[in-house]
Amino acid sequence: MTNPRADRVRDVAKLVGRPGRLKRRQFLAEGPQAVREALRAHNDCLAAGGTAVVEALYATVECLKKYPELLEAAPGSRLQVRIASEMVLAAMTDTVSPQGVVAVCNFVDVPLAEVIAAKPKLIAMLCRVQDPGNAGTVLRAADAAGADAVIFSHSSVDIYNPKAVRSTAGSIFHLPIVLGAELPEVVEAVKAAGIGILAADGYGQLNLDLLQDESAARSFDQEIPDAMYDLAEPTMWLFGNEAQGLAGEEKALADHRVAVPVYGAAESLNLGTAATVCLYASARAQRRLH
Amino acid sequence: MTNPRADRVRDVAKLVGRPGRLKRRQFLAEGPQAVREALRAHNDCLAAGGTAVVEALYATVECLKKYPELLEAAPGSRLQVRIASEMVLAAMTDTVSPQGVVAVCNFVDVPLAEVIAAKPKLIAMLCRVQDPGNAGTVLRAADAAGADAVIFSHSSVDIYNPKAVRSTAGSIFHLPIVLGAELPEVVEAVKAAGIGILAADGYGQLNLDLLQDESAARSFDQEIPDAMYDLAEPTMWLFGNEAQGLAGEEKALADHRVAVPVYGAAESLNLGTAATVCLYASARAQRRLH
Repeated sequence: MTNPRADRVRDVAKLVGRPGRLKRRQFLAEGPQAVREALRAHNDCLAAGGTAVVEALYATVECLKKYPELLEAAPGSRLQVRIASEMVLAAMTDTVSPQGVVAVCNFVDVPLAEVIAAKPKLIAMLCRVQDPGNAGTVLRAADAAGADAVIFSHSSVDIYNPKAVRSTAGSIFHLPIVLGAELPEVVEAVKAAGIGILAADGYGQLNLDLLQDESAARSFDQEIPDAMYDLAEPTMWLFGNEAQGLAGEEKALADHRVAVPVYGAAESLNLGTAATVCLYASARAQRRLH
Repeated sequence: MTNPRADRVRDVAKLVGRPGRLKRRQFLAEGPQAVREALRAHNDCLAAGGTAVVEALYATVECLKKYPELLEAAPGSRLQVRIASEMVLAAMTDTVSPQGVVAVCNFVDVPLAEVIAAKPKLIAMLCRVQDPGNAGTVLRAADAAGADAVIFSHSSVDIYNPKAVRSTAGSIFHLPIVLGAELPEVVEAVKAAGIGILAADGYGQLNLDLLQDESAARSFDQEIPDAMYDLAEPTMWLFGNEAQGLAGEEKALADHRVAVPVYGAAESLNLGTAATVCLYASARAQRRLH
Protein backbone atom coordinates (compact mmCIF):
# COMPACT_ATOMS: atom_id res chain seq x y z
CA MET A 1 0.00 0.00 0.00
CA THR A 2 1.52 3.28 -1.12
CA ASN A 3 -1.46 5.60 -1.60
CA PRO A 4 -2.16 7.59 1.58
CA ARG A 5 -5.51 8.62 0.11
CA ALA A 6 -6.83 5.11 -0.47
CA ASP A 7 -10.22 4.30 1.04
CA ARG A 8 -8.76 1.69 3.35
CA VAL A 9 -6.24 4.21 4.70
CA ARG A 10 -8.99 6.71 5.35
CA ASP A 11 -11.03 4.05 7.10
CA VAL A 12 -8.17 3.27 9.47
CA ALA A 13 -7.51 6.98 10.05
CA LYS A 14 -11.10 7.41 11.23
CA LEU A 15 -10.15 5.42 14.34
CA VAL A 16 -8.04 8.37 15.51
CA GLY A 17 -11.30 10.13 16.41
CA ARG A 18 -13.82 8.97 18.98
CA PRO A 19 -16.87 8.87 16.66
CA GLY A 20 -14.99 6.59 14.26
CA ARG A 21 -13.94 4.31 17.10
CA LEU A 22 -17.42 4.06 18.60
CA LYS A 23 -18.97 3.32 15.22
CA ARG A 24 -16.68 0.39 14.49
CA ARG A 25 -15.84 -0.55 18.09
CA GLN A 26 -12.19 -0.59 17.06
CA PHE A 27 -9.06 1.34 18.00
CA LEU A 28 -5.43 1.71 16.96
CA ALA A 29 -2.32 0.26 18.55
CA GLU A 30 0.85 1.87 17.19
CA GLY A 31 4.51 0.93 17.35
CA PRO A 32 6.29 -2.41 17.82
CA GLN A 33 5.75 -2.71 21.58
CA ALA A 34 1.99 -2.09 21.58
CA VAL A 35 1.47 -4.23 18.48
CA ARG A 36 3.48 -7.10 19.96
CA GLU A 37 1.28 -7.03 23.08
CA ALA A 38 -1.84 -6.81 20.91
CA LEU A 39 -0.77 -9.89 18.94
CA ARG A 40 0.02 -11.78 22.14
CA ALA A 41 -3.44 -10.95 23.52
CA HIS A 42 -4.94 -11.90 20.17
CA ASN A 43 -3.29 -15.32 20.13
CA ASP A 44 -4.12 -15.99 23.79
CA CYS A 45 -7.72 -15.00 23.16
CA LEU A 46 -8.12 -17.23 20.10
CA ALA A 47 -6.41 -20.14 21.89
CA ALA A 48 -8.96 -19.76 24.70
CA GLY A 49 -11.83 -19.89 22.21
CA GLY A 50 -12.40 -16.12 22.30
CA THR A 51 -12.75 -13.61 19.51
CA ALA A 52 -10.05 -11.78 17.58
CA VAL A 53 -8.27 -8.83 19.20
CA VAL A 54 -6.34 -7.70 16.11
CA GLU A 55 -8.34 -7.21 12.92
CA ALA A 56 -5.64 -5.88 10.62
CA LEU A 57 -1.91 -5.16 10.71
CA TYR A 58 -0.03 -2.59 8.62
CA ALA A 59 3.75 -2.34 8.68
CA THR A 60 6.68 -1.01 6.67
CA VAL A 61 9.27 -3.42 5.28
CA GLU A 62 11.92 -1.70 7.43
CA CYS A 63 9.89 -2.30 10.58
CA LEU A 64 9.34 -5.98 9.80
CA LYS A 65 13.08 -6.41 9.19
CA LYS A 66 13.85 -4.80 12.51
CA TYR A 67 11.10 -6.63 14.45
CA PRO A 68 10.72 -10.02 12.72
CA GLU A 69 8.70 -11.30 15.70
CA LEU A 70 5.77 -9.32 14.31
CA LEU A 71 5.81 -11.55 11.23
CA GLU A 72 6.22 -14.68 13.35
CA ALA A 73 3.23 -13.82 15.52
CA ALA A 74 0.98 -13.03 12.62
CA PRO A 75 0.60 -16.47 10.91
CA GLY A 76 -0.49 -18.24 14.08
CA SER A 77 -2.94 -15.45 14.62
CA ARG A 78 -4.64 -15.95 11.23
CA LEU A 79 -3.66 -12.43 10.28
CA GLN A 80 -2.17 -11.11 7.10
CA VAL A 81 0.42 -8.38 7.52
CA ARG A 82 -0.14 -5.70 4.91
CA ILE A 83 3.02 -3.94 3.79
CA ALA A 84 2.54 -0.18 3.76
CA SER A 85 4.71 2.84 3.07
CA GLU A 86 5.76 5.31 5.78
CA MET A 87 3.40 7.86 4.24
CA VAL A 88 0.47 5.47 4.44
CA LEU A 89 1.18 4.74 8.11
CA ALA A 90 1.53 8.44 8.88
CA ALA A 91 -1.84 9.05 7.22
CA MET A 92 -3.42 6.31 9.33
CA THR A 93 -2.34 7.75 12.69
CA ASP A 94 -2.02 11.03 14.54
CA THR A 95 1.68 10.65 15.31
CA VAL A 96 4.53 12.21 13.40
CA SER A 97 6.43 8.94 13.65
CA PRO A 98 4.16 5.87 13.97
CA GLN A 99 7.27 3.65 14.29
CA GLY A 100 6.44 1.60 11.23
CA VAL A 101 3.55 -0.53 12.44
CA VAL A 102 -0.13 -0.07 13.25
CA ALA A 103 -2.71 -2.65 14.34
CA VAL A 104 -6.47 -2.19 14.07
CA CYS A 105 -7.83 -3.76 17.27
CA ASN A 106 -11.32 -4.59 18.48
CA PHE A 107 -12.41 -2.99 21.73
CA VAL A 108 -11.10 -5.05 24.63
CA ASP A 109 -13.23 -3.75 27.54
CA VAL A 110 -15.36 -6.21 29.44
CA PRO A 111 -18.54 -5.94 31.55
CA LEU A 112 -18.16 -5.24 35.27
CA ALA A 113 -19.79 -8.59 36.08
CA GLU A 114 -16.96 -10.44 34.33
CA VAL A 115 -14.39 -8.67 36.50
CA ILE A 116 -16.27 -9.41 39.71
CA ALA A 117 -16.81 -13.06 38.75
CA ALA A 118 -13.03 -13.53 38.52
CA LYS A 119 -12.70 -12.77 42.27
CA PRO A 120 -10.29 -9.84 41.93
CA LYS A 121 -7.95 -8.90 44.75
CA LEU A 122 -6.81 -5.52 43.49
CA ILE A 123 -8.82 -3.08 41.36
CA ALA A 124 -8.07 0.51 40.37
CA MET A 125 -11.01 2.75 39.54
CA LEU A 126 -10.48 6.12 37.88
CA CYS A 127 -13.22 8.71 38.38
CA ARG A 128 -13.49 11.51 35.81
CA VAL A 129 -9.81 11.41 34.82
CA GLN A 130 -9.45 13.73 31.83
CA ASP A 131 -5.91 13.48 30.52
CA PRO A 132 -5.19 10.55 28.16
CA GLY A 133 -1.56 10.38 29.31
CA ASN A 134 -2.62 10.13 32.96
CA ALA A 135 -5.20 7.45 32.22
CA GLY A 136 -2.65 5.39 30.31
CA THR A 137 0.02 5.87 32.97
CA VAL A 138 -2.28 4.66 35.75
CA LEU A 139 -3.33 1.63 33.66
CA ARG A 140 0.35 0.79 33.11
CA ALA A 141 1.12 1.23 36.82
CA ALA A 142 -1.88 -0.95 37.76
CA ASP A 143 -0.59 -3.64 35.40
CA ALA A 144 2.89 -3.44 36.93
CA ALA A 145 1.42 -3.73 40.42
CA GLY A 146 -0.41 -6.87 39.31
CA ALA A 147 -3.91 -5.37 39.58
CA ASP A 148 -6.75 -7.58 38.35
CA ALA A 149 -8.74 -4.85 36.59
CA VAL A 150 -8.98 -1.12 35.92
CA ILE A 151 -12.39 0.55 35.86
CA PHE A 152 -13.03 3.94 34.24
CA SER A 153 -16.02 6.00 35.33
CA HIS A 154 -18.67 7.32 32.99
CA SER A 155 -17.14 10.74 32.27
CA SER A 156 -13.49 9.72 32.00
CA VAL A 157 -11.24 10.28 29.00
CA ASP A 158 -11.54 7.56 26.34
CA ILE A 159 -8.80 4.99 27.03
CA TYR A 160 -8.92 4.06 23.31
CA ASN A 161 -7.68 7.56 22.43
CA PRO A 162 -4.35 6.98 20.61
CA LYS A 163 -2.40 9.05 23.15
CA ALA A 164 -3.88 7.04 26.04
CA VAL A 165 -3.12 3.75 24.27
CA ARG A 166 0.49 4.87 23.73
CA SER A 167 0.82 5.79 27.42
CA THR A 168 -0.23 2.28 28.46
CA ALA A 169 2.85 0.85 26.69
CA GLY A 170 0.86 -2.29 25.86
CA SER A 171 -0.79 -2.68 29.27
CA ILE A 172 -4.22 -2.07 27.71
CA PHE A 173 -3.92 -5.67 26.45
CA HIS A 174 -2.75 -7.13 29.76
CA LEU A 175 -5.61 -6.80 32.21
CA PRO A 176 -9.40 -6.45 32.01
CA ILE A 177 -10.73 -2.91 31.70
CA VAL A 178 -14.28 -1.72 32.30
CA LEU A 179 -15.46 1.51 30.66
CA GLY A 180 -18.29 3.98 31.30
CA ALA A 181 -19.00 2.62 34.77
CA GLU A 182 -21.29 4.36 37.25
CA LEU A 183 -19.52 4.59 40.61
CA PRO A 184 -22.55 3.69 42.80
CA GLU A 185 -23.16 0.52 40.78
CA VAL A 186 -19.49 -0.44 40.94
CA VAL A 187 -19.41 0.17 44.69
CA GLU A 188 -22.48 -1.99 45.21
CA ALA A 189 -21.05 -4.89 43.19
CA VAL A 190 -17.61 -4.61 44.73
CA LYS A 191 -18.92 -4.45 48.30
CA ALA A 192 -21.18 -7.46 47.67
CA ALA A 193 -18.05 -9.35 46.59
CA GLY A 194 -16.38 -8.54 49.92
CA ILE A 195 -13.85 -6.14 48.47
CA GLY A 196 -12.82 -3.12 50.55
CA ILE A 197 -12.88 0.36 49.01
CA LEU A 198 -10.16 2.95 49.65
CA ALA A 199 -10.35 6.49 48.29
CA ALA A 200 -6.98 8.10 47.50
CA ASP A 201 -7.35 11.55 49.00
CA GLY A 202 -4.61 14.01 49.95
CA TYR A 203 -6.77 15.07 52.89
CA GLY A 204 -7.67 11.51 53.90
CA GLN A 205 -7.81 10.63 57.59
CA LEU A 206 -5.66 7.50 57.15
CA ASN A 207 -1.97 7.68 56.29
CA LEU A 208 -0.85 5.10 53.72
CA ASP A 209 2.45 4.59 55.54
CA LEU A 210 0.57 3.78 58.74
CA LEU A 211 -1.33 1.08 56.85
CA GLN A 212 1.93 -0.23 55.38
CA ASP A 213 3.57 -0.33 58.80
CA GLU A 214 0.58 -2.23 60.19
CA SER A 215 0.89 -4.65 57.29
CA ALA A 216 4.60 -5.17 57.98
CA ALA A 217 3.85 -5.68 61.68
CA ARG A 218 1.32 -8.41 60.85
CA SER A 219 3.93 -10.30 58.87
CA PHE A 220 6.06 -10.39 62.03
CA ASP A 221 3.09 -11.63 64.06
CA GLN A 222 2.79 -8.36 65.95
CA GLU A 223 -0.50 -7.43 67.57
CA ILE A 224 -2.27 -4.47 65.92
CA PRO A 225 -4.58 -3.14 68.65
CA ASP A 226 -6.49 -0.51 66.64
CA ALA A 227 -5.99 -1.68 63.09
CA MET A 228 -7.76 0.59 60.63
CA TYR A 229 -7.57 -1.46 57.45
CA ASP A 230 -5.63 -4.51 56.36
CA LEU A 231 -3.95 -3.75 53.02
CA ALA A 232 -3.68 -7.48 52.37
CA GLU A 233 -7.48 -7.68 51.98
CA PRO A 234 -9.05 -7.55 48.50
CA THR A 235 -9.19 -3.84 47.72
CA MET A 236 -10.51 -1.39 45.16
CA TRP A 237 -8.73 1.98 45.07
CA LEU A 238 -10.61 5.06 43.87
CA PHE A 239 -8.62 7.79 42.14
CA GLY A 240 -10.15 11.14 41.21
CA ASN A 241 -9.85 13.80 38.56
CA GLU A 242 -6.28 15.10 38.21
CA ALA A 243 -7.18 18.70 39.09
CA GLN A 244 -9.93 18.35 41.68
CA GLY A 245 -9.38 14.86 43.07
CA LEU A 246 -12.40 12.86 44.17
CA ALA A 247 -15.68 14.65 44.79
CA GLY A 248 -17.26 14.54 48.24
CA GLU A 249 -19.98 12.12 47.18
CA GLU A 250 -17.40 9.85 45.57
CA LYS A 251 -15.26 9.75 48.73
CA ALA A 252 -18.36 9.04 50.80
CA LEU A 253 -18.79 5.72 48.99
CA ALA A 254 -15.40 4.45 50.14
CA ASP A 255 -14.72 2.60 53.39
CA HIS A 256 -11.75 4.88 54.13
CA ARG A 257 -10.03 7.94 52.72
CA VAL A 258 -6.27 7.35 52.57
CA ALA A 259 -3.56 9.96 52.04
CA VAL A 260 -0.15 9.29 50.56
CA PRO A 261 2.09 11.16 53.00
CA VAL A 262 3.94 14.17 51.63
CA TYR A 263 7.28 14.51 53.41
CA GLY A 264 8.61 17.55 51.55
CA ALA A 265 7.08 20.88 50.61
CA ALA A 266 5.11 19.57 47.62
CA GLU A 267 1.43 20.46 47.86
CA SER A 268 0.37 17.15 46.44
CA LEU A 269 1.38 14.27 44.23
CA ASN A 270 0.32 14.00 40.63
CA LEU A 271 -2.26 11.36 39.80
CA GLY A 272 0.09 8.78 38.29
CA THR A 273 2.50 9.09 41.19
CA ALA A 274 -0.17 8.79 43.89
CA ALA A 275 -1.85 5.84 42.16
CA THR A 276 1.46 4.03 41.85
CA VAL A 277 2.29 4.37 45.52
CA CYS A 278 -1.21 3.20 46.57
CA LEU A 279 -1.38 0.22 44.22
CA TYR A 280 2.14 -0.94 45.07
CA ALA A 281 1.35 -0.68 48.78
CA SER A 282 -1.57 -3.08 48.29
CA ALA A 283 0.41 -5.35 45.98
CA ARG A 284 3.21 -5.73 48.55
CA ALA A 285 0.85 -6.36 51.44
CA GLN A 286 -1.16 -8.92 49.48
CA ARG A 287 1.94 -10.81 48.42
CA ARG A 288 3.64 -10.77 51.80
CA LEU A 289 0.83 -12.39 53.74
CA HIS A 290 -0.77 -14.87 51.38
CA MET B 1 0.50 46.71 29.93
CA THR B 2 -1.70 46.07 26.94
CA ASN B 3 0.69 45.96 23.97
CA PRO B 4 1.83 42.39 23.27
CA ARG B 5 4.55 43.77 20.99
CA ALA B 6 6.19 45.99 23.59
CA ASP B 7 9.92 45.49 24.11
CA ARG B 8 9.44 44.31 27.67
CA VAL B 9 6.96 41.66 26.54
CA ARG B 10 9.39 40.43 23.91
CA ASP B 11 12.15 40.33 26.50
CA VAL B 12 10.08 38.11 28.77
CA ALA B 13 9.04 35.91 25.85
CA LYS B 14 12.71 35.22 25.08
CA LEU B 15 12.82 33.15 28.29
CA VAL B 16 10.63 30.53 26.60
CA GLY B 17 13.73 29.48 24.61
CA ARG B 18 16.92 28.07 26.05
CA PRO B 19 19.33 30.64 24.54
CA GLY B 20 17.29 33.46 26.07
CA ARG B 21 17.28 31.75 29.46
CA LEU B 22 21.01 31.05 29.46
CA LYS B 23 21.82 34.63 28.44
CA ARG B 24 19.88 36.17 31.31
CA ARG B 25 20.07 33.22 33.74
CA GLN B 26 16.33 33.61 34.22
CA PHE B 27 13.25 31.46 33.59
CA LEU B 28 9.45 31.69 33.71
CA ALA B 29 7.06 30.41 36.35
CA GLU B 30 3.45 30.43 35.12
CA GLY B 31 0.13 30.13 36.89
CA PRO B 32 -0.99 30.89 40.45
CA GLN B 33 0.46 27.74 42.04
CA ALA B 34 3.98 28.05 40.61
CA VAL B 35 4.09 31.82 41.20
CA ARG B 36 2.93 31.41 44.80
CA GLU B 37 5.76 28.94 45.43
CA ALA B 38 8.22 31.26 43.66
CA LEU B 39 7.17 34.16 45.91
CA ARG B 40 7.46 32.01 49.01
CA ALA B 41 10.99 30.94 48.01
CA HIS B 42 11.77 34.58 47.21
CA ASN B 43 10.69 35.82 50.62
CA ASP B 44 12.46 32.97 52.44
CA CYS B 45 15.62 33.64 50.48
CA LEU B 46 15.61 37.39 51.18
CA ALA B 47 14.83 36.78 54.87
CA ALA B 48 17.89 34.51 55.03
CA GLY B 49 20.07 37.21 53.51
CA GLY B 50 20.10 35.62 50.06
CA THR B 51 19.38 37.09 46.64
CA ALA B 52 16.06 37.60 44.90
CA VAL B 53 14.29 34.62 43.31
CA VAL B 54 11.54 36.60 41.55
CA GLU B 55 12.63 39.53 39.41
CA ALA B 56 9.27 40.60 37.97
CA LEU B 57 5.62 39.65 38.23
CA TYR B 58 2.94 40.14 35.57
CA ALA B 59 -0.73 39.39 36.24
CA THR B 60 -4.20 40.16 34.98
CA VAL B 61 -6.67 42.03 37.20
CA GLU B 62 -8.95 38.98 37.11
CA CYS B 63 -6.17 36.73 38.40
CA LEU B 64 -5.28 39.10 41.25
CA LYS B 65 -8.94 39.24 42.28
CA LYS B 66 -9.13 35.46 42.29
CA TYR B 67 -5.77 34.95 44.03
CA PRO B 68 -5.32 37.99 46.29
CA GLU B 69 -2.49 36.22 48.13
CA LEU B 70 -0.29 37.05 45.13
CA LEU B 71 -0.72 40.73 45.94
CA GLU B 72 -0.15 40.15 49.62
CA ALA B 73 3.10 38.29 49.02
CA ALA B 74 4.45 40.90 46.66
CA PRO B 75 4.93 43.93 48.99
CA GLY B 76 7.01 42.01 51.51
CA SER B 77 9.06 40.71 48.67
CA ARG B 78 9.97 44.20 47.42
CA LEU B 79 8.29 43.40 44.14
CA GLN B 80 5.90 45.44 42.08
CA VAL B 81 3.11 43.51 40.41
CA ARG B 82 2.63 44.77 36.87
CA ILE B 83 -0.94 44.55 35.61
CA ALA B 84 -1.04 43.04 32.13
CA SER B 85 -3.73 42.02 29.67
CA GLU B 86 -4.46 38.39 28.76
CA MET B 87 -2.94 39.04 25.36
CA VAL B 88 0.27 40.34 26.88
CA LEU B 89 0.56 37.26 29.11
CA ALA B 90 -0.14 34.94 26.18
CA ALA B 91 2.60 36.70 24.21
CA MET B 92 5.04 36.21 27.11
CA THR B 93 4.59 32.43 27.38
CA ASP B 94 4.24 29.35 25.23
CA THR B 95 0.93 28.27 26.74
CA VAL B 96 -2.50 28.90 25.27
CA SER B 97 -3.78 29.77 28.74
CA PRO B 98 -1.07 31.12 31.08
CA GLN B 99 -3.65 31.30 33.90
CA GLY B 100 -3.28 35.03 34.37
CA VAL B 101 0.10 35.30 36.06
CA VAL B 102 3.76 34.94 35.10
CA ALA B 103 6.88 35.45 37.21
CA VAL B 104 10.35 36.09 35.82
CA CYS B 105 12.66 34.12 38.15
CA ASN B 106 16.41 33.91 38.55
CA PHE B 107 18.00 30.49 38.12
CA VAL B 108 17.72 28.59 41.39
CA ASP B 109 20.25 25.77 40.86
CA VAL B 110 23.13 25.44 43.30
CA PRO B 111 26.63 23.94 43.12
CA LEU B 112 27.04 20.27 44.04
CA ALA B 113 29.31 21.21 46.96
CA GLU B 114 26.44 23.13 48.59
CA VAL B 115 24.20 20.06 48.44
CA ILE B 116 26.89 17.79 49.91
CA ALA B 117 27.72 20.28 52.68
CA ALA B 118 24.11 20.13 53.90
CA LYS B 119 24.57 16.41 54.73
CA PRO B 120 21.73 15.09 52.56
CA LYS B 121 20.01 11.81 53.37
CA LEU B 122 18.12 11.32 50.11
CA ILE B 123 19.17 12.49 46.64
CA ALA B 124 17.68 11.73 43.23
CA MET B 125 19.98 11.95 40.23
CA LEU B 126 18.57 11.91 36.70
CA CYS B 127 20.94 10.77 33.96
CA ARG B 128 20.19 11.91 30.40
CA VAL B 129 16.44 12.28 30.95
CA GLN B 130 15.04 13.89 27.80
CA ASP B 131 11.36 14.64 28.34
CA PRO B 132 10.55 17.89 30.21
CA GLY B 133 7.36 16.39 31.64
CA ASN B 134 9.28 13.40 33.04
CA ALA B 135 11.99 15.59 34.54
CA GLY B 136 9.40 17.78 36.24
CA THR B 137 7.37 14.81 37.46
CA VAL B 138 10.42 13.20 39.09
CA LEU B 139 11.39 16.50 40.72
CA ARG B 140 7.86 16.80 42.12
CA ALA B 141 7.91 13.19 43.36
CA ALA B 142 11.33 13.74 44.96
CA ASP B 143 9.95 16.79 46.75
CA ALA B 144 6.93 14.82 47.98
CA ALA B 145 9.21 12.05 49.24
CA GLY B 146 11.18 14.65 51.18
CA ALA B 147 14.39 14.30 49.14
CA ASP B 148 17.15 16.78 49.98
CA ALA B 149 18.24 17.47 46.40
CA VAL B 150 17.75 16.52 42.76
CA ILE B 151 20.78 16.38 40.44
CA PHE B 152 20.49 16.47 36.64
CA SER B 153 23.33 15.08 34.54
CA HIS B 154 25.13 17.00 31.83
CA SER B 155 22.97 15.94 28.86
CA SER B 156 19.55 16.07 30.50
CA VAL B 157 16.62 18.18 29.36
CA ASP B 158 16.67 21.76 30.70
CA ILE B 159 14.59 21.82 33.89
CA TYR B 160 13.98 25.56 33.26
CA ASN B 161 12.05 24.66 30.08
CA PRO B 162 8.49 26.02 30.66
CA LYS B 163 6.92 22.56 30.24
CA ALA B 164 9.31 21.09 32.82
CA VAL B 165 8.66 23.95 35.24
CA ARG B 166 4.90 23.40 34.89
CA SER B 167 5.32 19.67 35.57
CA THR B 168 7.10 20.39 38.84
CA ALA B 169 3.93 22.12 40.16
CA GLY B 170 6.11 24.50 42.20
CA SER B 171 8.56 21.87 43.46
CA ILE B 172 11.40 23.52 41.52
CA PHE B 173 11.34 26.15 44.32
CA HIS B 174 11.22 23.63 47.17
CA LEU B 175 14.49 21.75 47.17
CA PRO B 176 18.03 22.35 45.89
CA ILE B 177 18.71 21.32 42.29
CA VAL B 178 22.08 20.81 40.63
CA LEU B 179 22.35 21.06 36.85
CA GLY B 180 24.86 19.87 34.24
CA ALA B 181 26.55 17.46 36.64
CA GLU B 182 29.08 14.85 35.51
CA LEU B 183 28.13 11.49 37.02
CA PRO B 184 31.68 10.37 37.96
CA GLU B 185 32.26 13.62 39.87
CA VAL B 186 28.92 13.35 41.64
CA VAL B 187 29.63 9.73 42.57
CA GLU B 188 33.03 10.66 43.99
CA ALA B 189 31.62 13.48 46.13
CA VAL B 190 28.62 11.45 47.27
CA LYS B 191 30.71 8.41 48.22
CA ALA B 192 33.17 10.59 50.12
CA ALA B 193 30.20 11.89 52.12
CA GLY B 194 29.26 8.33 53.07
CA ILE B 195 26.12 8.20 50.95
CA GLY B 196 25.19 4.90 49.31
CA ILE B 197 24.36 4.80 45.59
CA LEU B 198 21.51 2.71 44.17
CA ALA B 199 20.84 2.44 40.44
CA ALA B 200 17.17 1.95 39.48
CA ASP B 201 17.38 -0.81 36.89
CA GLY B 202 14.59 -3.12 35.71
CA TYR B 203 17.21 -5.86 35.40
CA GLY B 204 18.84 -5.10 38.75
CA GLN B 205 19.98 -8.00 40.95
CA LEU B 206 18.27 -6.59 44.07
CA ASN B 207 14.48 -6.46 44.43
CA LEU B 208 13.19 -3.24 46.00
CA ASP B 209 10.50 -5.14 47.92
CA LEU B 210 13.19 -7.36 49.46
CA LEU B 211 14.98 -4.24 50.68
CA GLN B 212 11.70 -2.86 52.04
CA ASP B 213 10.94 -6.12 53.83
CA GLU B 214 14.42 -6.08 55.37
CA SER B 215 13.81 -2.52 56.48
CA ALA B 216 10.49 -3.47 58.08
CA ALA B 217 12.15 -6.44 59.78
CA ARG B 218 14.80 -4.15 61.30
CA SER B 219 12.11 -1.98 62.82
CA PHE B 220 10.82 -5.08 64.64
CA ASP B 221 14.34 -5.93 65.83
CA GLN B 222 14.57 -8.95 63.58
CA GLU B 223 17.99 -10.29 62.61
CA ILE B 224 18.86 -9.82 58.92
CA PRO B 225 21.52 -12.46 58.25
CA ASP B 226 22.51 -11.51 54.70
CA ALA B 227 21.36 -7.92 54.47
CA MET B 228 22.13 -6.41 51.07
CA TYR B 229 21.50 -2.74 51.72
CA ASP B 230 19.83 -0.76 54.47
CA LEU B 231 17.32 1.64 52.88
CA ALA B 232 17.47 3.78 56.04
CA GLU B 233 21.06 4.77 55.18
CA PRO B 234 21.73 8.06 53.35
CA THR B 235 21.13 7.20 49.69
CA MET B 236 21.43 8.62 46.21
CA TRP B 237 19.19 7.00 43.59
CA LEU B 238 20.27 7.04 39.94
CA PHE B 239 17.54 7.12 37.29
CA GLY B 240 18.30 6.76 33.58
CA ASN B 241 16.99 7.93 30.25
CA GLU B 242 13.27 7.14 29.78
CA ALA B 243 13.81 4.96 26.71
CA GLN B 244 17.13 3.22 27.39
CA GLY B 245 17.43 3.39 31.18
CA LEU B 246 20.90 3.72 32.69
CA ALA B 247 23.94 2.89 30.56
CA GLY B 248 26.27 0.09 31.62
CA GLU B 249 29.00 2.50 32.74
CA GLU B 250 26.47 4.50 34.75
CA LYS B 251 25.18 1.40 36.56
CA ALA B 252 28.75 0.33 37.26
CA LEU B 253 29.24 3.43 39.42
CA ALA B 254 26.42 2.43 41.80
CA ASP B 255 26.81 0.21 44.87
CA HIS B 256 23.80 -1.87 43.82
CA ARG B 257 21.36 -2.17 40.95
CA VAL B 258 17.80 -2.34 42.29
CA ALA B 259 14.67 -3.41 40.38
CA VAL B 260 11.14 -2.33 41.20
CA PRO B 261 9.27 -5.64 41.01
CA VAL B 262 6.71 -5.98 38.22
CA TYR B 263 3.86 -8.21 39.40
CA GLY B 264 1.70 -8.06 36.28
CA ALA B 265 2.45 -8.41 32.58
CA ALA B 266 3.85 -4.88 32.12
CA GLU B 267 7.29 -4.93 30.57
CA SER B 268 8.49 -2.09 32.73
CA LEU B 269 7.43 0.97 34.67
CA ASN B 270 7.67 4.44 33.26
CA LEU B 271 10.35 6.70 34.68
CA GLY B 272 8.11 8.78 36.94
CA THR B 273 6.43 5.71 38.37
CA ALA B 274 9.67 3.84 39.06
CA ALA B 275 11.33 6.90 40.62
CA THR B 276 8.34 7.45 42.88
CA VAL B 277 8.36 3.91 44.20
CA CYS B 278 12.14 4.00 44.82
CA LEU B 279 12.20 7.40 46.54
CA TYR B 280 9.19 6.61 48.72
CA ALA B 281 10.79 3.30 49.75
CA SER B 282 13.84 5.21 51.01
CA ALA B 283 11.72 7.93 52.61
CA ARG B 284 9.69 5.40 54.60
CA ALA B 285 12.73 3.45 55.73
CA GLN B 286 14.58 6.60 56.78
CA ARG B 287 11.61 7.87 58.76
CA ARG B 288 10.78 4.61 60.44
CA LEU B 289 14.16 4.05 61.98
CA HIS B 290 15.50 7.47 62.84
